Amino acid sequence: MELRDLAIKKLEERGVKLQDIADITFSLQDPYHKDLCYGECIDMVNQVLDKREVIHTILTGIALDEVAEKGLIDKDICDLIKNDNGLYGMDEILALGITNLFGSIALTNFGYTDKNKPGIIGVIDKEGKEGIKCNTFLDDIVGAIAASAAARLAHTRGNE
Amino acid sequence: MELRDLAIKKLEERGVKLQDIADITFSLQDPYHKDLCYGECIDMVNQVLDKREVIHTILTGIALDEVAEKGLIDKDICDLIKNDNGLYGMDEILALGITNLFGSIALTNFGYTDKNKPGIIGVIDKEGKEGIKCNTFLDDIVGAIAASAAARLAHTRGNE
Amino acid sequence: MELRDLAIKKLEERGVKLQDIADITFSLQDPYHKDLCYGECIDMVNQVLDKREVIHTILTGIALDEVAEKGLIDKDICDLIKNDNGLYGMDEILALGITNLFGSIALTNFGYTDKNKPGIIGVIDKEGKEGIKCNTFLDDIVGAIAASAAARLAHTRGNE
Amino acid sequence: MELRDLAIKKLEERGVKLQDIADITFSLQDPYHKDLCYGECIDMVNQVLDKREVIHTILTGIALDEVAEKGLIDKDICDLIKNDNGLYGMDEILALGITNLFGSIALTNFGYTDKNKPGIIGVIDKEGKEGIKCNTFLDDIVGAIAASAAARLAHTRGNE
Repeated sequence: MELRDLAIKKLEERGVKLQDIADITFSLQDPYHKDLCYGECIDMVNQVLDKREVIHTILTGIALDEVAEKGLIDKDICDLIKNDNGLYGMDEILALGITNLFGSIALTNFGYTDKNKPGIIGVIDKEGKEGIKCNTFLDDIVGAIAASAAARLAHTRGNE
Repeated sequence: MELRDLAIKKLEERGVKLQDIADITFSLQDPYHKDLCYGECIDMVNQVLDKREVIHTILTGIALDEVAEKGLIDKDICDLIKNDNGLYGMDEILALGITNLFGSIALTNFGYTDKNKPGIIGVIDKEGKEGIKCNTFLDDIVGAIAASAAARLAHTRGNE
Repeated sequence: MELRDLAIKKLEERGVKLQDIADITFSLQDPYHKDLCYGECIDMVNQVLDKREVIHTILTGIALDEVAEKGLIDKDICDLIKNDNGLYGMDEILALGITNLFGSIALTNFGYTDKNKPGIIGVIDKEGKEGIKCNTFLDDIVGAIAASAAARLAHTRGNE
Repeated sequence: MELRDLAIKKLEERGVKLQDIADITFSLQDPYHKDLCYGECIDMVNQVLDKREVIHTILTGIALDEVAEKGLIDKDICDLIKNDNGLYGMDEILALGITNLFGSIALTNFGYTDKNKPGIIGVIDKEGKEGIKCNTFLDDIVGAIAASAAARLAHTRGNE
């Protein structure tokens, strides 16, 4: 299996479909484009996933969530990740590895999703906070992909 | 005059007082701390302004707004800056020179202020859009300082 | 004239040809690819210049060099830019607006050119230090484009 | 044990002493300061380690090296990390979480150490390449700390 397909499969295993990400992209860009259609958002999400560094970030972030969930790492760092403490910071740093590639619009949109937690981000954040799963990296990765797809859409259409 | 004092004077000349910035910091952090007082926010804004690179960013950004306003640079780049086009991007890049120094909480809060334009940011953004002044860099700089002060406050108190 | 052509024209006016930049890209990537040819490096430099945010960075950085050179901004910030003080930092921040778009290989290569000043970078750095011109932003922009073209080449060939 | 002490202990377990890091800082800054002493470099390294996000990066990066070394994660991502492929990029992204906090001098020095691999960085890079250990994240973390200490030293002395 190619790494791109593996990254999509891992996202699905953790409860995130590409459609869920495109929904967030749509909500971020809809105010700026009167005729925006959902299909364009799906296209943009797919284009974001074409980048090798995006695929690597997804696989690395989910691996960290999984080893923390299973307790396979030292207790102190495991607790830091599982508690998703606002001061931990590594989840946002990994997400920047995605948004940086798509410029400043990606970055500001990521900041917005990180605070507002729209759509599936709110769902996986809640799962994480309830201790059902460890989604500390996953929610930031999803926000970063959605925000990057929004930036790509803004640049493709040439206005925001 | 020291560069720090000059940076504060330039902010005031362009219509921004440190109190206005602290107001935004307060609004960003109030939901997380029940006993937050305004004086703490002013202290944090002052600490952000102690950093040499923050001072340099303020002076450089305002210089760009001023030369664009006065038409002292080539017409094409002048228009790009004056129109504050969502795709210009340099204003956010300069602001990152501030937020990067204060970690990922600064960054996500900056993204939030960039979209929501709370307090004085909304005021100077409106002045810019009406063509009264060129505030393209100023509003991002103010958002970056407020967001960085919020991050410093979160780290100082040890929770968010 | 399109903004892309304007950016190339401004680079040439300030003494930098695309070939000079491609020379640096070649020197950065030659150790990793036995059959690297110079034409590929020129192609990669041209692809880096296709990005809107790269064009904006070139135009903004050169505008700052020019207003500092002509003394059109406040004396304190003018001196900071003209002296190209190692602690100024804004030139590197602007350059990051370019390298971020091309991932971590771009970034580490930029850091390397910033310290080693290969080829044309050394020439314009010297002109700036001798006070003939103000090239504070220009040398970092050139390094960032060369490093980004190197990163794109590494990703295109699929190995480093 | 406090997290700061744990981070230092983990570095030592993986073969890196704070003195090794200070040696690199010394080599980076010695050309700029005639009277530089080694004790100052150790102080600066210690100050870098006071930052919460630096500690978190050390613990997270070493955890990733360890789970890859032990094969506790999916084979594809495990191979990506163990092979320290030049296109992987996550190791540099994590390191940026450190250097960003210390400004642009930290960043350019990090880029330099990443290419030149001075001192202990060369040693652990070699161990990793020989397959004895997985040091993919460790070498970038060490470079980032050394570069950040160099930046702090430059800012403290007020010249570079």
